Amino acid sequence: MWRKEIRLAGSGGQGLGLAAMVLADAALRAGLHATIMQSYGPEARGGASRADVTLSDQPIANPWFPAPRILLALSQKAWDRFSPKLGADALAIVDLDRVQGAQGANVWALPFERTARAELREKVAANMLALGALGVVLEHIPQEILAETAQSRAPKGFGQVNRTAVARGWQLMGDALGGIAHVESVGP
Amino acid sequence: MWRKEIRLAGSGGQGLGLAAMVLADAALRAGLHATIMQSYGPEARGGASRADVTLSDQPIANPWFPAPRILLALSQKAWDRFSPKLGADALAIVDLDRVQGAQGANVWALPFERTARAELREKVAANMLALGALGVVLEHIPQEILAETAQSRAPKGFGQVNRTAVARGWQLMGDALGGIAHVESVGP
Repeated sequence: MWRKEIRLAGSGGQGLGLAAMVLADAALRAGLHATIMQSYGPEARGGASRADVTLSDQPIANPWFPAPRILLALSQKAWDRFSPKLGADALAIVDLDRVQGAQGANVWALPFERTARAELREKVAANMLALGALGVVLEHIPQEILAETAQSRAPKGFGQVNRTAVARGWQLMGDALGGIAHVESVGP
Repeated sequence: MWRKEIRLAGSGGQGLGLAAMVLADAALRAGLHATIMQSYGPEARGGASRADVTLSDQPIANPWFPAPRILLALSQKAWDRFSPKLGADALAIVDLDRVQGAQGANVWALPFERTARAELREKVAANMLALGALGVVLEHIPQEILAETAQSRAPKGFGQVNRTAVARGWQLMGDALGGIAHVESVGP
């Protein structure tokens, strides 16, 4: 059985809820099962945002997990809060400019927001770049399905931007991994 | 500790995802904690829709539950699938015209869709009527907060309809309970 437990964390407004929806929907289109768990509480008012996604090739009876196997952190607060719980074999992907002090063999710091701003002129597309990077390590969702889903679920006018962002994030992660996944990446 | 485990189930297009969001957001505004869990899988393609909501006055460490304490079923399929798992003390609210064979001391069959169509001219507002009915039995979220949240999260043009629908659903449930909750209901 293949199963991945993923936490998408950052601050409110970074679009992590949408990223979770796109990921779950893309997984479904790829023939997988998915659950999304979102938590709301008075402490979330400060702007912390978090969505837990569980993916599997089997129906998911219990989607809950105490700590994720894969953490995406797009803010310092998110990193500080969730990284202490990561197991030794967990993998983390963080925004290079947003998170300080994230180091380790399984930590990948990539310039999502910087690239979104510079290349796509849309800082908010950082979430879709991060999703593309995530896609590489998940290995079970083809880039084309992820990009297509990101496009179809985008807010009006953001379809092409989101599709391009997924492809670019996929490429960034592929490059970081030393080209291992690079063969799967396509240009925007 | 107060905790409620609620399953909102029906068919795709009945707006149960939105109902779950409104419920979680209203709970947050009422000072509670909330989680939403949504499942996606190939079997969901048939149109089954389900969202699990956990509410508590404490932070929710583990939101998962094997069977809900409160089931809202707006379709026959949803009832057939989830009602067998209900415990003896569980409570169920179903759509009177959509679900057959739902009987028991803790089962309430109310005309959500019929009322939405006849009084609000919007069949899709059945979800918000059902949410209003749910509010009565939850007891920890004031009607005004639920109605206000339903209004603010409504799709464009549906704000007033949703607010009215919550109040009307609250009233339907209050009447069904013999007026116990009726004092809390206000007109649209």
